[in-house]
Amino acid sequence: MERTYIQDLKDNIDKEVSISGWVDVARNQGKMAFFDFRDGTGFVQGVVFGKEEVLEIAKALRPEWVVSIKGKVNKRPEKMINTGVDNGDIELEIFEINILSEAQELPFEKDTELNLDTYLDNMPLTLRSKKAQRIFKTQAKIIKAYREILDKNGFIEFQAPKLVGGDAEGGAGVFKVEYFHDKDAYLATSPQLYKQIMVGVYERVFSTGNVFRAEKHSTTRHINEYTSLDAEFGFIEDHNDVIEELSDVMKHIGKAVDEVDNLKIPDKIPVMKLRDAQKLISKDTGEDCTNEPDLEPAHERWLSEYALKELNSDFIFITHYPVSKRPFYTYEDEEDKGFTKSFDLLFRGVEIATGGQRVHDYNTLLEKLKEKNLDPNDFSFYLQAFKYGMPPHGGWGMGLERLTQKIFNLDNVKEATLFPREMNRIDKLLSE
Amino acid sequence: MERTYIQDLKDNIDKEVSISGWVDVARNQGKMAFFDFRDGTGFVQGVVFGKEEVLEIAKALRPEWVVSIKGKVNKRPEKMINTGVDNGDIELEIFEINILSEAQELPFEKDTELNLDTYLDNMPLTLRSKKAQRIFKTQAKIIKAYREILDKNGFIEFQAPKLVGGDAEGGAGVFKVEYFHDKDAYLATSPQLYKQIMVGVYERVFSTGNVFRAEKHSTTRHINEYTSLDAEFGFIEDHNDVIEELSDVMKHIGKAVDEVDNLKIPDKIPVMKLRDAQKLISKDTGEDCTNEPDLEPAHERWLSEYALKELNSDFIFITHYPVSKRPFYTYEDEEDKGFTKSFDLLFRGVEIATGGQRVHDYNTLLEKLKEKNLDPNDFSFYLQAFKYGMPPHGGWGMGLERLTQKIFNLDNVKEATLFPREMNRIDKLLSE
Repeated sequence: MERTYIQDLKDNIDKEVSISGWVDVARNQGKMAFFDFRDGTGFVQGVVFGKEEVLEIAKALRPEWVVSIKGKVNKRPEKMINTGVDNGDIELEIFEINILSEAQELPFEKDTELNLDTYLDNMPLTLRSKKAQRIFKTQAKIIKAYREILDKNGFIEFQAPKLVGGDAEGGAGVFKVEYFHDKDAYLATSPQLYKQIMVGVYERVFSTGNVFRAEKHSTTRHINEYTSLDAEFGFIEDHNDVIEELSDVMKHIGKAVDEVDNLKIPDKIPVMKLRDAQKLISKDTGEDCTNEPDLEPAHERWLSEYALKELNSDFIFITHYPVSKRPFYTYEDEEDKGFTKSFDLLFRGVEIATGGQRVHDYNTLLEKLKEKNLDPNDFSFYLQAFKYGMPPHGGWGMGLERLTQKIFNLDNVKEATLFPREMNRIDKLLSE
Repeated sequence: MERTYIQDLKDNIDKEVSISGWVDVARNQGKMAFFDFRDGTGFVQGVVFGKEEVLEIAKALRPEWVVSIKGKVNKRPEKMINTGVDNGDIELEIFEINILSEAQELPFEKDTELNLDTYLDNMPLTLRSKKAQRIFKTQAKIIKAYREILDKNGFIEFQAPKLVGGDAEGGAGVFKVEYFHDKDAYLATSPQLYKQIMVGVYERVFSTGNVFRAEKHSTTRHINEYTSLDAEFGFIEDHNDVIEELSDVMKHIGKAVDEVDNLKIPDKIPVMKLRDAQKLISKDTGEDCTNEPDLEPAHERWLSEYALKELNSDFIFITHYPVSKRPFYTYEDEEDKGFTKSFDLLFRGVEIATGGQRVHDYNTLLEKLKEKNLDPNDFSFYLQAFKYGMPPHGGWGMGLERLTQKIFNLDNVKEATLFPREMNRIDKLLSE
C-alpha cells in the first residue's frame, strides 16, 4: 500500500491508509494505546483498541521508534476535536504496526526545555523537538525568500570560495589552514572581495554561504562559523540605494515567515546617523557616548527600543560610522569627512547586517589600503577589478542565524544555529 | 533621467533613454565612433556622429571604461540587422557620455581564448568575457533549479557546518585548521554526517555549500574546494528510490538551462551494476577489468560513450561498488554480499554524483565503523541519531562545478569554477 503523508490524511477520511514516521508520544492505557506520530509533514494521533495482536506490538512502542502504520482515518467526534494541534479533528484507527527501527530510551523528554549545553550535547535528538523543528524550518524559509527577492530584482548568484590566501578585511580574527607545500591558507571572514569582483562581471550579485571568525567571544550573539547572506550591486548613487534594496529584502523575508504577525517592518525603515543616535542615547541615559567610534551592545538595544516605541519599527539603520572603524573598502562621505557611507542594520537590539557604498576608484583604493597599513601587493588579484573599470557600487552582509534568533526572540544565537561552532565546542565539548 | 536596463531598450524605440554600463568594444572611425556597451542585462551597439563635443569624449573611451550614456533608441534599417547578437535590430544614437570610471589598458582582449593559467591569473577581468559570463550564469540557474525541485518535492534546506571535529568519511584527504586552545579542527569533505542527522529531524533535507578535499590531484577534474549539492531522505525501499529522485532532479536541471537542446536525458536514466559494466568494457577493450574494485577514468569515459551510443543517454548510473571501496555508512546489499546499494552517476565521461542507501540500524553502524578501523567514540555525536530511531534512508552528493563543466563540454573543471583552489594556486600562484 502506497504511503500517505500525514499532511494529506485529512483528505482521506474514512479511507484505509499507510503512514510512516516516528512515535512522538506513546500513551499506554491498558486495553487501548494512544500515540502521536510524526513524519516530515506533520503530526497525527493514532489509537489501537480491540485488536489484541496489534495491542501487543503497540505496547512495545516507545518515543522515537520508527514505524509504518496501516489504519483508517476517522473524523473525531465534535467534542474530541483539538483545534490547537495538527490534524486535531482526525484520528488514525490502527490496524497494523510495522517496526522499521527501534530507539533506545531517551535521556530526557524530547520537548523538555533544557539547559543550553545539554541541548547542544544532544542535538541529533533535541533538533527533533517541536521548537527546534520550527526554528530551522523558518530559517529555510528565510534563505529561500532572500534568494527569491534578489533573483527577482536581477541579482545573479555566485559561489564564493571559503579558502582564501589572506585576511581580506584586515580586521576580524581569521582561522589558519595548513595548505599545500607548507603554505598557509585562511578561512574567509566574508565574501567581500569576491563579490566586488563579481560586480564587474554581472553588475548585481548575491551569495549565501558560511563564513568564519576566529574571535574569542563568549557571548549570546557570537558564533565562530555562520551563514552570511551577501549581496553587492553596481551603478548606485550612494549608500541609500543599498539601504533601499536591503529594506525591500527584509520586507520580502517578513512576508515569507509565519512569524510575520509579530514583525514590525514599516514601509520606510528608519535611518539615523550614528552621531544623531549617540546624542539621543546620551540625552536619555545621561552618559555621554557622543565621542565613541561605535555603539556598545547596550546602545544597540536602546536604539532598537527607541525605534519600536517612537517609530513603530523593529528595524533601524544607523549610518556614518567613522572611517577609523570601517574596513579599507568603505566609501568616505565627501560632504562629511571622516565618516563613511556605511550602515549597520539593527533588529530587536542586535546588529544583523552591515553594508554601505564601497570605494570604486582604483587610485583611491590604493590610498585607503595604505591608510590602513595594508600592503597593496597582498590585494593584487582583487585590485585588478578596479584597474579594469568598476562602477560605483555597494552591498551588505547579513547574518542568517542572528536574524533567525531575533525573529523568534531567542536568548542565544546558538539556538538559531544548526551545529554551532564556538571556542569550546565543535558538536561535542572540545575538552572531552 | 532614470536608468533603462539594456534588456529593456527594445521597448523604447524612438525614445530618449539613459543607460549605464561598460564599454565592451570601442571602434573609432574618424567622424563616427561605434561602441558595444554592456550592463548586467545585455549588450547594445551605440554610435556617435555629427556631435563634435560628444565625439571628443567618445574618442577617449576604451574597453572596460564605465559610462552612463544618454541617447535615442533607433531601429536599424533592415539590411543592418544582426540577428546573431543581443539587440541586433536596434542601435543607440548617443547624445551625451558621462564617464563614471576609467580603466587601464587591458593586457589582452577580454574575449580572446587564453591559456588556462593566464585566464586564472586575470579572473577579475577574464570572468567578464562572454564565455565565462555565460558559464557562471548557467551555474546560477543550475543551483536554483536544484533547490526548486527539491523544495517542490518536500525537502527542507539546512545549513551544514564546514568546520568539523574530525575526518567524517575516513577516506578523502582533509585540511587541518588551527582552532582554539591548541585544538585542531578540520574542513568538511562533505556534509554527510549532518545530513543524516537532519533526516531524523525533517525526514527529507538538502544542502548546498562548499566542501574541501586536501588531495594532491593535478587533473582536469579535481579542485580542492567545490560546491556540493547534497540531499538525503528517509523511508526509502532501497537505493533505487534515491536514483529515481536524483533522476527527477537532473531532468529538472536539464529543463532549466539554455543548453538543454544538447542534453540527452531519457525518461529513465540507465542503471547498470559495476560488474556488468566491467564485463562490457573488458569485452570491448580486451583488457580484463572485472576484478577491479572501481572504475578507471578511461572506463568512465567508455561507459558514457556506450550510454550515449546504445542507450541515447548522457547519463548512466553505475551501482554495487564493493564494500571495500565505499565509506562505512554505505548499505551492503543483503542479496549480493560484499557489494553495496550505492551508485555513481556518470555524465559525459566523469562521475558527477555519488550516493546510495545508508545504514540506519545503530548496531550495524557500530560494526561497520569497526570494520573500517574507525573509532566509534569519534562518531559519538553522529551516532546519537541512530540510537534514537532512524528510518531507512539514502541520498547523494553532486559536484556543481563538474556538472557545469560537462554541460558546456569544457576541458577543465577549473573553467567551471569561480576562483578555483588548487595545489599551486589560491587566486594567485602560491609560488609568487
